[in-house]
Amino acid sequence: MNRLKCTIAYDGTNFSGFQVQSNGRTVQGDIEKALFKLHKGEEIRIHPSGRTDAGVHAHGQVIHFDSPLSIPVDRYQMALNTLLPDDIVALTIENVNTDFHARYNVVKKEYRYFLLNQKERDVFRKNHSYYYPYAINLDRIIEATKYLLGAHDFTSFCSTKSDKENKVRTIEEIEIWKENNEIVFRFVGNGFLYNMVRIIVGTLLKVGQGKLEPEDIKVILEEKNRKAAGKTAPAHGLHLWKVWY
Amino acid sequence: MNRLKCTIAYDGTNFSGFQVQSNGRTVQGDIEKALFKLHKGEEIRIHPSGRTDAGVHAHGQVIHFDSPLSIPVDRYQMALNTLLPDDIVALTIENVNTDFHARYNVVKKEYRYFLLNQKERDVFRKNHSYYYPYAINLDRIIEATKYLLGAHDFTSFCSTKSDKENKVRTIEEIEIWKENNEIVFRFVGNGFLYNMVRIIVGTLLKVGQGKLEPEDIKVILEEKNRKAAGKTAPAHGLHLWKVWY
Repeated sequence: MNRLKCTIAYDGTNFSGFQVQSNGRTVQGDIEKALFKLHKGEEIRIHPSGRTDAGVHAHGQVIHFDSPLSIPVDRYQMALNTLLPDDIVALTIENVNTDFHARYNVVKKEYRYFLLNQKERDVFRKNHSYYYPYAINLDRIIEATKYLLGAHDFTSFCSTKSDKENKVRTIEEIEIWKENNEIVFRFVGNGFLYNMVRIIVGTLLKVGQGKLEPEDIKVILEEKNRKAAGKTAPAHGLHLWKVWY
Repeated sequence: MNRLKCTIAYDGTNFSGFQVQSNGRTVQGDIEKALFKLHKGEEIRIHPSGRTDAGVHAHGQVIHFDSPLSIPVDRYQMALNTLLPDDIVALTIENVNTDFHARYNVVKKEYRYFLLNQKERDVFRKNHSYYYPYAINLDRIIEATKYLLGAHDFTSFCSTKSDKENKVRTIEEIEIWKENNEIVFRFVGNGFLYNMVRIIVGTLLKVGQGKLEPEDIKVILEEKNRKAAGKTAPAHGLHLWKVWY
């Protein structure tokens, strides 16, 4: 068996999420279907760096799987891309040691959140950027992010549906910039809880609108209560950008 | 009656074209449906600068129509955008004289054609850029464009389905540049025949691949025969960018 590490991109618009479930198209389901064909009817199970929710996009998601085929990885990639639907693509495939695990070996991850901050909708970004036509103060938002940097218990910024016991995570970098009429939020951390980036963005927007003060973030973290934070920003603005090993 | 000039953008992916037809969603159909609601059941007919085909996008299409309503244009725009589907948006609306006509008064138009020139597909550009993973020589293409500039009979670059008698058009500007992994073709002219930009792009790609010489464009123009030119490039790479009056 050969263990393969594969970087994939997908447009999450028409998926019910990553993980196989009883109804709806899933990224995992479609990749495993393609691998099933590629392996002439043999079922291949894939393992992602982590799941993504319905509507969330990925530019550099990583998966691993074991294949009995011994063909060069570039031919493997070409064959796989021919079998994948047009909203999933394999960007790189490489051979790795059998002790590589796409989930357990993650060192850090990068997410980006896109906010369309202009008066009118943009029909070309409707599924990829959160249309937010309200005035926001970016300086206040950037000021607020400093309370999020470093290791914290992110219970307040985690969906109550999460089953993770330990909610301490470390955010190493937060960058925010304007790109044309979009505001890009970039987060790099050693791990992210369920809905964590979306709840952080939703809360930062309250700061940007003047409904919260930047230093309120510190208090919200200390409360360890999901209700203390802001709304969960919509899924379609979220992009899993990169995974480091 | 007030004549309104309206700049609109639409993502052509899920439309069967601009003009109302017996089956399939059309841009005109959806806009007229929204106006019908806005005018409480009164039918309003819109007039575009020109039609676009199924799959073709618009960033700055212009339409005009007459409205019995006398509300400020910014409120009109807001109401219309609330009623339009999420793949059409009104970018600007202004009052114009009743002698303004969106089609007859066009001075020039700009089209852009996007080509994704990289090894793998881009899931985020799949409906907006023509995926073309083959090696092309951009210098040869740019060399070829000089034969297209100016006034010519573009019969060879016009669909045989066209019913226009006079096929002389003037291309004022052609610019071609790389933007990330895309090649952008920009055409500005006083008018474009049916499929003209797509046939030009398809033919320029043959030059870029070495299957035609740049100076062959001159010969193709002189032949005045659609068969002399290259294939019609796919609709989804084409964007109506701007219309001048």
